[in-house]
Amino acid sequence: MGDYSAMKLYTTQGAPNPRLVNIYLAEKGISVPKEEVSIMKGEHKTSEYRKKSPLAQVPVLEMEDGTCMTESVAICRYFETLQPDPPLFGTDAKSIAEIEMWRRRLELLLFMPAAFSFRHMHPAMAGLESQIKEWGELSKDRTGKMIGWLNQQMEGRDFIASSGFSIADITGLVAMDFAIHAARVPLPENPPHLKRWHERLSARPSAKA
Amino acid sequence: MGDYSAMKLYTTQGAPNPRLVNIYLAEKGISVPKEEVSIMKGEHKTSEYRKKSPLAQVPVLEMEDGTCMTESVAICRYFETLQPDPPLFGTDAKSIAEIEMWRRRLELLLFMPAAFSFRHMHPAMAGLESQIKEWGELSKDRTGKMIGWLNQQMEGRDFIASSGFSIADITGLVAMDFAIHAARVPLPENPPHLKRWHERLSARPSAKA
Repeated sequence: MGDYSAMKLYTTQGAPNPRLVNIYLAEKGISVPKEEVSIMKGEHKTSEYRKKSPLAQVPVLEMEDGTCMTESVAICRYFETLQPDPPLFGTDAKSIAEIEMWRRRLELLLFMPAAFSFRHMHPAMAGLESQIKEWGELSKDRTGKMIGWLNQQMEGRDFIASSGFSIADITGLVAMDFAIHAARVPLPENPPHLKRWHERLSARPSAKA
Repeated sequence: MGDYSAMKLYTTQGAPNPRLVNIYLAEKGISVPKEEVSIMKGEHKTSEYRKKSPLAQVPVLEMEDGTCMTESVAICRYFETLQPDPPLFGTDAKSIAEIEMWRRRLELLLFMPAAFSFRHMHPAMAGLESQIKEWGELSKDRTGKMIGWLNQQMEGRDFIASSGFSIADITGLVAMDFAIHAARVPLPENPPHLKRWHERLSARPSAKA
């Protein structure tokens, strides 16, 4: 186990990208000091914070030498390289590619439409986004269609990728919970393929990280 | 050099995601048999093609054993693992994370808004997209702002990441050319930081792959 006590992770409780990193770190058994950044209070838009994250994104990993790294998946890959076990991005060409294919499908075709739906339709987002209701509705419709397709795909599978639990499952859990709670798109009950996967993932201690 | 003659890459000339894979393969010196799929003729939506690419995406890499892989970056990572040199995704924890951070910024914050702008505003896309003009305009505005920010960031840099030429540059070139030609957002002339990087990248033989 590495000693990461001289690093700092700037994170926002409840926001999806920070949650992805928190679950990843919990699954790897990695502990990094954390500092809370309130997006609702606009703490990510201060000039002080922008020195660490020029595009005002959360999370940020600040390293011992002051280097700051943004982008949730970049932060995960940093730790994956330092501490490869348990491997969550695959181990050989085929598993690496399959996990990346699924991770991207879940981020680009499930999480992003869910995020657009939330940002463009939810009243709490009116101050943070130039809301276009029609785009929010189209995105919500696409979120539902992707969930329907995923539900079929999960028949007979314990985890997203054939090599077992991976960053694709973490991405899927974060995206699915965001779709349910923020975009208000329900998990299909019947057939229960995706629901069983969601229960399996939610039961892991890391889901509460 | 590996022998990839038993594989097949389904690709679409001129489309940005296939171009990313083509440039990557040219930079790696990798040759894979290709088959053209016409998006404009709807060849990506046939039931035959959907057996290879269930979400009707191009490109697809079909392996010798019939396994099909979608998602441009997943295909690149597959070859990166089989043939690591020259390394285009980084070599140590810090360069891997820095390249991934930039690759994501360029894909999510430059390419995607440019793609939304094109899909929602261009008459040629009317048959392929439920066009929302207001969303197209907002996306075009965001594309322009990201290019302005990138232009500042490129001051004094030869390549996007500090470790040298990488997949982040390829992603940036594909995104920038798409922004210029499809979304009609110009490259800033002054200061010419981004323009010089764009000229440098465009002069590489791979840019025509």
